[in-house]
Amino acid sequence: MDRLRDLPYEDLDFAKVDHHRELRKGFPEVIFGLGKSPGQIASIADALLKQSDRLLVTRASPEAYEAVHSKIADAAYDEIARTIAVDRRQPSERKVVSGVLVICAGTADLPVACEAAVTAELMDCEVERVFDVGVAGIHRLLDQKDALNRARVVVAVAGMEGALPSVVGGLVQVPVIAVPTSVGYGASFDGLAALLAMLNSCATGIGVVNIDNGFGAGYLAAVINRLPQPQLD
Amino acid sequence: MDRLRDLPYEDLDFAKVDHHRELRKGFPEVIFGLGKSPGQIASIADALLKQSDRLLVTRASPEAYEAVHSKIADAAYDEIARTIAVDRRQPSERKVVSGVLVICAGTADLPVACEAAVTAELMDCEVERVFDVGVAGIHRLLDQKDALNRARVVVAVAGMEGALPSVVGGLVQVPVIAVPTSVGYGASFDGLAALLAMLNSCATGIGVVNIDNGFGAGYLAAVINRLPQPQLD
Amino acid sequence: MDRLRDLPYEDLDFAKVDHHRELRKGFPEVIFGLGKSPGQIASIADALLKQSDRLLVTRASPEAYEAVHSKIADAAYDEIARTIAVDRRQPSERKVVSGVLVICAGTADLPVACEAAVTAELMDCEVERVFDVGVAGIHRLLDQKDALNRARVVVAVAGMEGALPSVVGGLVQVPVIAVPTSVGYGASFDGLAALLAMLNSCATGIGVVNIDNGFGAGYLAAVINRLPQPQLD
Amino acid sequence: MDRLRDLPYEDLDFAKVDHHRELRKGFPEVIFGLGKSPGQIASIADALLKQSDRLLVTRASPEAYEAVHSKIADAAYDEIARTIAVDRRQPSERKVVSGVLVICAGTADLPVACEAAVTAELMDCEVERVFDVGVAGIHRLLDQKDALNRARVVVAVAGMEGALPSVVGGLVQVPVIAVPTSVGYGASFDGLAALLAMLNSCATGIGVVNIDNGFGAGYLAAVINRLPQPQLD
Amino acid sequence: MDRLRDLPYEDLDFAKVDHHRELRKGFPEVIFGLGKSPGQIASIADALLKQSDRLLVTRASPEAYEAVHSKIADAAYDEIARTIAVDRRQPSERKVVSGVLVICAGTADLPVACEAAVTAELMDCEVERVFDVGVAGIHRLLDQKDALNRARVVVAVAGMEGALPSVVGGLVQVPVIAVPTSVGYGASFDGLAALLAMLNSCATGIGVVNIDNGFGAGYLAAVINRLPQPQLD
Amino acid sequence: MDRLRDLPYEDLDFAKVDHHRELRKGFPEVIFGLGKSPGQIASIADALLKQSDRLLVTRASPEAYEAVHSKIADAAYDEIARTIAVDRRQPSERKVVSGVLVICAGTADLPVACEAAVTAELMDCEVERVFDVGVAGIHRLLDQKDALNRARVVVAVAGMEGALPSVVGGLVQVPVIAVPTSVGYGASFDGLAALLAMLNSCATGIGVVNIDNGFGAGYLAAVINRLPQPQLD
Amino acid sequence: MDRLRDLPYEDLDFAKVDHHRELRKGFPEVIFGLGKSPGQIASIADALLKQSDRLLVTRASPEAYEAVHSKIADAAYDEIARTIAVDRRQPSERKVVSGVLVICAGTADLPVACEAAVTAELMDCEVERVFDVGVAGIHRLLDQKDALNRARVVVAVAGMEGALPSVVGGLVQVPVIAVPTSVGYGASFDGLAALLAMLNSCATGIGVVNIDNGFGAGYLAAVINRLPQPQLD
Amino acid sequence: MDRLRDLPYEDLDFAKVDHHRELRKGFPEVIFGLGKSPGQIASIADALLKQSDRLLVTRASPEAYEAVHSKIADAAYDEIARTIAVDRRQPSERKVVSGVLVICAGTADLPVACEAAVTAELMDCEVERVFDVGVAGIHRLLDQKDALNRARVVVAVAGMEGALPSVVGGLVQVPVIAVPTSVGYGASFDGLAALLAMLNSCATGIGVVNIDNGFGAGYLAAVINRLPQPQLD
Repeated sequence: MDRLRDLPYEDLDFAKVDHHRELRKGFPEVIFGLGKSPGQIASIADALLKQSDRLLVTRASPEAYEAVHSKIADAAYDEIARTIAVDRRQPSERKVVSGVLVICAGTADLPVACEAAVTAELMDCEVERVFDVGVAGIHRLLDQKDALNRARVVVAVAGMEGALPSVVGGLVQVPVIAVPTSVGYGASFDGLAALLAMLNSCATGIGVVNIDNGFGAGYLAAVINRLPQPQLD
Repeated sequence: MDRLRDLPYEDLDFAKVDHHRELRKGFPEVIFGLGKSPGQIASIADALLKQSDRLLVTRASPEAYEAVHSKIADAAYDEIARTIAVDRRQPSERKVVSGVLVICAGTADLPVACEAAVTAELMDCEVERVFDVGVAGIHRLLDQKDALNRARVVVAVAGMEGALPSVVGGLVQVPVIAVPTSVGYGASFDGLAALLAMLNSCATGIGVVNIDNGFGAGYLAAVINRLPQPQLD
Repeated sequence: MDRLRDLPYEDLDFAKVDHHRELRKGFPEVIFGLGKSPGQIASIADALLKQSDRLLVTRASPEAYEAVHSKIADAAYDEIARTIAVDRRQPSERKVVSGVLVICAGTADLPVACEAAVTAELMDCEVERVFDVGVAGIHRLLDQKDALNRARVVVAVAGMEGALPSVVGGLVQVPVIAVPTSVGYGASFDGLAALLAMLNSCATGIGVVNIDNGFGAGYLAAVINRLPQPQLD
Repeated sequence: MDRLRDLPYEDLDFAKVDHHRELRKGFPEVIFGLGKSPGQIASIADALLKQSDRLLVTRASPEAYEAVHSKIADAAYDEIARTIAVDRRQPSERKVVSGVLVICAGTADLPVACEAAVTAELMDCEVERVFDVGVAGIHRLLDQKDALNRARVVVAVAGMEGALPSVVGGLVQVPVIAVPTSVGYGASFDGLAALLAMLNSCATGIGVVNIDNGFGAGYLAAVINRLPQPQLD
Repeated sequence: MDRLRDLPYEDLDFAKVDHHRELRKGFPEVIFGLGKSPGQIASIADALLKQSDRLLVTRASPEAYEAVHSKIADAAYDEIARTIAVDRRQPSERKVVSGVLVICAGTADLPVACEAAVTAELMDCEVERVFDVGVAGIHRLLDQKDALNRARVVVAVAGMEGALPSVVGGLVQVPVIAVPTSVGYGASFDGLAALLAMLNSCATGIGVVNIDNGFGAGYLAAVINRLPQPQLD
Repeated sequence: MDRLRDLPYEDLDFAKVDHHRELRKGFPEVIFGLGKSPGQIASIADALLKQSDRLLVTRASPEAYEAVHSKIADAAYDEIARTIAVDRRQPSERKVVSGVLVICAGTADLPVACEAAVTAELMDCEVERVFDVGVAGIHRLLDQKDALNRARVVVAVAGMEGALPSVVGGLVQVPVIAVPTSVGYGASFDGLAALLAMLNSCATGIGVVNIDNGFGAGYLAAVINRLPQPQLD
Repeated sequence: MDRLRDLPYEDLDFAKVDHHRELRKGFPEVIFGLGKSPGQIASIADALLKQSDRLLVTRASPEAYEAVHSKIADAAYDEIARTIAVDRRQPSERKVVSGVLVICAGTADLPVACEAAVTAELMDCEVERVFDVGVAGIHRLLDQKDALNRARVVVAVAGMEGALPSVVGGLVQVPVIAVPTSVGYGASFDGLAALLAMLNSCATGIGVVNIDNGFGAGYLAAVINRLPQPQLD
Repeated sequence: MDRLRDLPYEDLDFAKVDHHRELRKGFPEVIFGLGKSPGQIASIADALLKQSDRLLVTRASPEAYEAVHSKIADAAYDEIARTIAVDRRQPSERKVVSGVLVICAGTADLPVACEAAVTAELMDCEVERVFDVGVAGIHRLLDQKDALNRARVVVAVAGMEGALPSVVGGLVQVPVIAVPTSVGYGASFDGLAALLAMLNSCATGIGVVNIDNGFGAGYLAAVINRLPQPQLD
């Protein structure tokens, strides 16, 4: 344990735990659950929580949650987002900022959308969720005008033809983070169709993240939403 | 000349002119102008018009039109559609059917959209044109509700993210023919992004044609629009 | 239940059921069975049937059917098409229109072809089926001249080199909906070869749908087949 | 001219000029110069400036500038960015906000980086430029620590292996907009390599735009930089 | 000149001329004209003819022919095939074998088809040509039954959807060499669509060569056609 | 059973058995085992053998063989080739022709190579097998000069970089059928690397079949090997 | 056994064991464990060790190790590298050379990095390992300056955006072997993103191997590290 | 001029000249000529030579050479390699090391091969050149056994199927640097086929560089060839 004072990481044999990331980036290291055993996830989670008061595991199976929960009693599992989260800060330490809207096209996009929402919430953003507003029923989206107007940053999640960010980008003046998902089949090529569509959006003010990268989108949304007030020259 | 009575095609040395296509498909052979010299186009056009009273050349340059026009005085050129058309039928022979709507996302899609419109018109359809209604300004599209409701078949043309057919498909109950265009740059990969988006549309009732294939879309629209009344069993 | 009167969808927690789609598109929401548990499919099906007298589930496993059947006694399963269908309308309510021909290249294409046929039938079309007429035995296709001549719209299904729609498109004057399937191996790249072939068809009057999208093809065929009589100007 | 009062766009025959975009998005329509003749660009520019006090043309050739300049005396050309810009607002109308850093990997990326910078400047951001700091000479980048710390949003532009945003993303806590360029040859596949690298960045807080899309990156940076102060709940 | 007796090649500074290939493969080295200057082609041709009595240049421009013809008076140019050929053997030396059929789908495929034919002829095969028999007009192909039955080996050339070899392969019992061409646009991706279709043919007895490789197809056809009589065990 | 006299195929409900293929192509229909249940394969095999005295099943699992063997006692299984074969002809009916050489690069290519060999043998060719002679140990290949010289047609099978057909093509004067295999990992992209290499071979006299298509290669080899003696004009 | 004296390989029925490779390349044949059964691996390993005093199996499962270990008591298993290694040489026979540095970006890259390290060690190189120094935390890499300066050849392993070799290549004057891994998801396309990035590196002195090819990188590193002293002219 | 003492680069307005690269990497910055005007190249060259006694310009046109030569009288142009080189060191300063062999498959690969050779020579390596030894005439390569045995590092350059490095890698024990070229057409996809082949080589000891990257290969070869003697532990 003493060596942790000297080294910026703890060696768990199968993984180096980077305790300094929180200093550099303002958020502790996040565990990507895919391809790790429940036991490995629990051990890394345990080590991270000794140095931080927040924890996030993404792509976590129920089995992974059980393993983590047996070690960390206050770990919370979101079944749809497939995330494990811990936040041990005092309410007074948290300065929650409203303004993140997470919006998705279909119910199959929910896991990615919820991963984005959970991430932004753990980074002290209030998140509004609007789901199942795909462009083939455009009125469902237009009915959400108030939510769109309230937003300071929008995370727009869609698979298949990935058109949602284009329509949203034409309706709002704030930044839009586009998240393609692997929802679809055949010529969706596991999300490639949605990714290309988003990169070629005719709307302005859009940045794209990797296919199914809900975490990355939620993280970027929180960073944008929490930027301090601009300085007028 | 006599051999034309025996053979279904005329041999121009550099091309066999298929005079029987009109019988099989209800429309004469169409000249694809790209890669042919003005002189070649004029010669083929001349030969075709000896057996048919209609002519269509697509992807025709102004130079090609000059060459054709010098031989065929009643040839009409559409500069935007890049088409040369001749229709020598008597008005009484034409039974024009209304119902085709050609709609496009941006001004750069005009050549493809107009090629579709000219084709459908030569096939005796009345064509309504609604241009520059891309999804990033969704209200421009929604303002066209009347035109959409009037349509019996919609040709929806778009480059970049190719989202227009999805939104249109959600608004109408009639068939939508989606035409991806090569408009865009970078990750549009010459129209691949729009093509994949259209194939993965979450809306129903959509059929897709090749990139920039305005002729194919106009042809299919006319065939659909002119189907005789269905038989009720 | 009361809220269903106010909201256009019912919230099943894991899915929002869109009861208004039938009004917009003339057909109720369809359940895409892939990736949903039998229990989830049964619950969504149950909710949909409370608002509609028709139901269609595609890509449904036998297990999904069992779950649905235990709740919905009149649900019918098509093992080859992998569809679950319910139609509670009175015979007098149905105005069946003949004219849809579904044709496929090989026996491995049957599931996609049958999905198209079942869809069009539920949309009140009489469907003629001609299977196993791939282009490598062209006489089998040419023997179907009568069926081809009877058709008002043809759904042509093929994997591997995807050549069937081109040959059919050269034989008929009616619209052809081309459906590439993922049948093949190696350089078929899960249906990409057939998809590209169909998009590049040298025949006219062809619209293409996504790989394996039998439902989309059947839907489009029915929409075309049921278009009301054209208005002559 | 009168009809401009009624219609949200002006019809120049070859283009519809969208005068309402400024209301919707806070910035007037931008002219994408590629594929338009100098004369066309000048005409559209002229029409836009009748309704707006700002103008931006991207991908503008020197010939395009000459045509524009002959009509619009106060048009300014940036040879490297290939932009034509006009800003007729009074200094008192402009509230310039500092905080945008545009950084690029190699000198060949300059046109894209400068397009981003010019765009953000016209949107009232003060832009700091740091060029030629590719990752193969990492100390050049690390020497820019002060600039990185000053930034509220970073636009990171790179071709070839596209690694710059990953390194920058690990050094800053603010949003990073990654712009892949088509600089490279062979297996860069016109910017695909850089694009994929940026989408797969192991750093957090990164959004990606299309290949060579300097305008889109500058626009998004300005929108982020000018977000009003967050509301604490 | 003396060193040619020792070395299997002649050094022209910009190219090594391989005089031994004729021994190894039964046919002299062939000059691929693309990317070589007329002067270079003429020099290589001259050197080759000093060691061989046959010469073949492919992808030769009219300018290349002029340069060759000025040095080699008996060189013959085929404008469509873009080949330069010389054959100085005595008629008695040539044992011509009939049996090669070259067939193509559209007139745009002619250059590739003729390159195949010219190659096989120079390799002492009698070649029958059947052009413009694409599958969208299947009766044109079926009318060629006699030619198909006469053939000992068929070269089937097609662009776009590349379906011709599949249909031909179903009609004949002899080997079919499939040649995809780059004829097409959009999703043909410069011949990729046709190439994939041919590799996935549902017919048997088909071998595929590179896109536009008429020479390779003609060569292979000649090698097959000239195989000596099989030995019965 | 009687209807088999009238119809060219037998309807097994899940498959139409094409009994006429043997007449058209000289070889009965072949069963592609992948994706069919052992029971289905056995039923189709049984039906086919009622009309033919030969049977070939490819991609057959041991379980499929058991099912077939229980119905067809004389069925032979090749474990490496994964084929089930039956040949009930009298020895006097078979006219075996020597001349097919099947050669492969690595031991992992054996299943594909053996599938080719078994196919050619069932088509009355004597097949010589030379395995594990990849180009990275070129002397192993050069040691096979006698076998190469004996061959009338060579089937060259290779995965990974797919270089074997190029080297073989430079050593022989007879046709070479190149078979890419999916052996490899990473940038082999399931055989794409080998496929592209073979299509781009700098050697002449090579035709390529689909990835892993041992059957197609063996079939083509047999058709070539059994071509009757050429006619000299 | 006697035939092993005559033949350069031993026939194990399912594999030919190449005993001469050690002479040609200086290292015995390596067993690629993927797709081979534990029993097959053990048999080949046994045969190889009869002719060599070294053995390397890559991609070996624990089950494969058990099978090998039951036959070969001194076989050592590396769980992370998934390698089985045997070295029966006397210490005096080994001339170990220091200078190979294996460096990787993330913990998920460890299996590939360790495979490289184990391979180079078995080829008599002393290997220094530096793991988890991805470019998003550039200081972790810069802290390794001493290790980088000590290295005579660096193996740099990374997935996702694959930027590590570029940064390393800018810091050292020695050869860098870049190994892309399949670590990542979505647009990493199983390592393609990292592969393209490494091929397009803006740094000099870099050679790339196949995705996940730790063995190939370790082998090349050892060959470079053990090159005898250059001859000065 | 004075600022050059303080800054590691000189600002030429259109380019920053990096004078410190020579210290970091042992070789001065190299000018990539493609896309730069002759005047720009000459100016950068001039600036670089003020700080270094060596200069290398790659992809230089004859016009670029003229511009450089007018400023730098001792600049030497290699027409085939398209390089401009200057070396002002005293012969005594150069310690030339023999051992680099540059080998290529066809004459069309010469520009890339020569670029590699010129680069290695400027880095004080003696380079042996063996050209036009493609694998389709394997004996030409085997005849070069002496050259192969002399080499300490081989640069193997090939387009089309890119098989040369595999064969060479099987013959030598030294490192092989594989350079794919864009030579080819159709399914070579501008060098992709050769690139994939080289990455999948079944031979060991091979590192790959980008398509047409002769400079990168020559640089890496020189770095390997000049590694100081290994330290035995």
